[in-house]
Amino acid sequence: MARTTLPVLLALLCVSAIARAQDALPSWNDGASKQAIVTLVERVTTEGSADYVEPGDRIATFDNDGCLWAEQPVYFQLLFAVDRIRAMAPDNPGWMTTEPYKSVLAGDMESLAKQGHKAIGEIIARTHAGMSTEQFDDTVREWLETARHPTTGRRYTDMVYKPMLELLEYLRKNGFQTFIVSGGGIDFLRVFAEEVYGIPSHQVVGSGMKTGYEVRNGVPTLVKLAELNFIDDKEGKPVGIHQHIGRRPFFAAGNSDGDFQMLEYVTAGDGPRFGLLVHHTDAEREWAYDRDSHVGRLVRGLDEAEQRGWVVVDMARDWATIFP
Amino acid sequence: MARTTLPVLLALLCVSAIARAQDALPSWNDGASKQAIVTLVERVTTEGSADYVEPGDRIATFDNDGCLWAEQPVYFQLLFAVDRIRAMAPDNPGWMTTEPYKSVLAGDMESLAKQGHKAIGEIIARTHAGMSTEQFDDTVREWLETARHPTTGRRYTDMVYKPMLELLEYLRKNGFQTFIVSGGGIDFLRVFAEEVYGIPSHQVVGSGMKTGYEVRNGVPTLVKLAELNFIDDKEGKPVGIHQHIGRRPFFAAGNSDGDFQMLEYVTAGDGPRFGLLVHHTDAEREWAYDRDSHVGRLVRGLDEAEQRGWVVVDMARDWATIFP
Repeated sequence: MARTTLPVLLALLCVSAIARAQDALPSWNDGASKQAIVTLVERVTTEGSADYVEPGDRIATFDNDGCLWAEQPVYFQLLFAVDRIRAMAPDNPGWMTTEPYKSVLAGDMESLAKQGHKAIGEIIARTHAGMSTEQFDDTVREWLETARHPTTGRRYTDMVYKPMLELLEYLRKNGFQTFIVSGGGIDFLRVFAEEVYGIPSHQVVGSGMKTGYEVRNGVPTLVKLAELNFIDDKEGKPVGIHQHIGRRPFFAAGNSDGDFQMLEYVTAGDGPRFGLLVHHTDAEREWAYDRDSHVGRLVRGLDEAEQRGWVVVDMARDWATIFP
Repeated sequence: MARTTLPVLLALLCVSAIARAQDALPSWNDGASKQAIVTLVERVTTEGSADYVEPGDRIATFDNDGCLWAEQPVYFQLLFAVDRIRAMAPDNPGWMTTEPYKSVLAGDMESLAKQGHKAIGEIIARTHAGMSTEQFDDTVREWLETARHPTTGRRYTDMVYKPMLELLEYLRKNGFQTFIVSGGGIDFLRVFAEEVYGIPSHQVVGSGMKTGYEVRNGVPTLVKLAELNFIDDKEGKPVGIHQHIGRRPFFAAGNSDGDFQMLEYVTAGDGPRFGLLVHHTDAEREWAYDRDSHVGRLVRGLDEAEQRGWVVVDMARDWATIFP
């Protein structure tokens, strides 16, 4: 190659890099949110810039329910538990007359909700404990393949947000390590996180029950116990991040006040940091809810986002496509 | 390039790959242990072979004390705690006459040991809780820079095993992800794991106290609490692996019966698996201990290694060099 063609080639490579960065988020409409993301990534990945961040420190944490996939009419994991109670009912005839099972089997979610946290805790324990971790994984996998969302008729894993999948991939291509930090169950999430989000099991943080280890008939087995281990919500999110990641992330995305402390902790770090809240504003293509919602309630985040410099993504305005 | 040179080039590349694999473990003497490691890695990384393992499943877990660095005369983290008690003593004059502090300040480790787990737990809690995680990290970092081992006079981070550093690097070069799974403190380990072992904080699993999150004078802060969170030893190791990694590793290395369940769980998986025990047999260059040792006691592992197909590394015979 003649020497004089090298600068031309380099120029072409640069142009193509910029085009790639913009093409990496095709489901995001041009506007302040997309611009803020692209600007940040360019700042922290440009060697020699004052805001350059070492690849090892480029850690991004994402809430799951309402941030990476939908959460209406209720958290999908609760729908899984309800389906499991139905499947287990023939072997438990007493459930027809015993709360909270009676309400679940009657499909009366309002009655279940009125029975409070203890009732929901019992449903979760009954469907998430008492089996090996491998049996649980198989049950979740089968459910994800066969179950359909009650209003859209889609598979639950098809109700992920395409713009957020693009964002995960865009960050990873720029040297970020992406983690899930969810109030949902860590074992439940890990069944599909790698395939759906490209996030391996050791980069998933969530709530969960304790696990026991025993040798059953000569087979080393991990058993899910009916005892709470950790709730990865609100103040629990920075704690879960510390426990699993061990350093302060650089970027955090959420959508509810359950994510407030995660964004607060992440964006209080030195140097450039990024907090993002997905605001559900699209009643036509998805759902519209915030301050009064029974899931994904968002009050303090909306009130304080501007003063804290967090980007609020307006789903109706910022996202050209929602589901894949 | 002429077409005929391509096979020659490929042949040269293959020869060089084999040479690289053998050069990757220069501190290991030729023999059965080294051969078993190299053979395994070649089997699982050869595409198309029956034993091929996808890179995402190439997970390797390593104990720390006595496996990656030395653990005599006692676990180094206990020596850190003793040094901290001494440093904190001027502000706690009552300690001169109160156990277990009195024994620690008198340097009477035998008396401390006689007071049992509760006394040692109090020393650990007093030196590992009541401060922010950042303050704790700074204290450990400063100690690692200044403290010296009582008999060798070396820095503790210079008492790592060179053959194991080479093994970590060799596995990573072959697509493995390396994790620490230690009975030692997760926060303590994370201060030096990346620099010394090349293992990032989110790939460190260990024992630890609970952490709390609070906003102190406007500053989001993680605080180390005097309440046990998890003991990552014996049955705790498969549990810790499940909690942090979320899938069964492919390779596990340890040195004591505290690692037995980890090796048992790992090597019970389908397909090729690898269990390795470091046997401390070198009283001249390191220490020689196993069945009767007060640290790193190894009885069941030695008795069952052969029938379970675990490789027992004889430090005196297998390692050409021990410390860097």
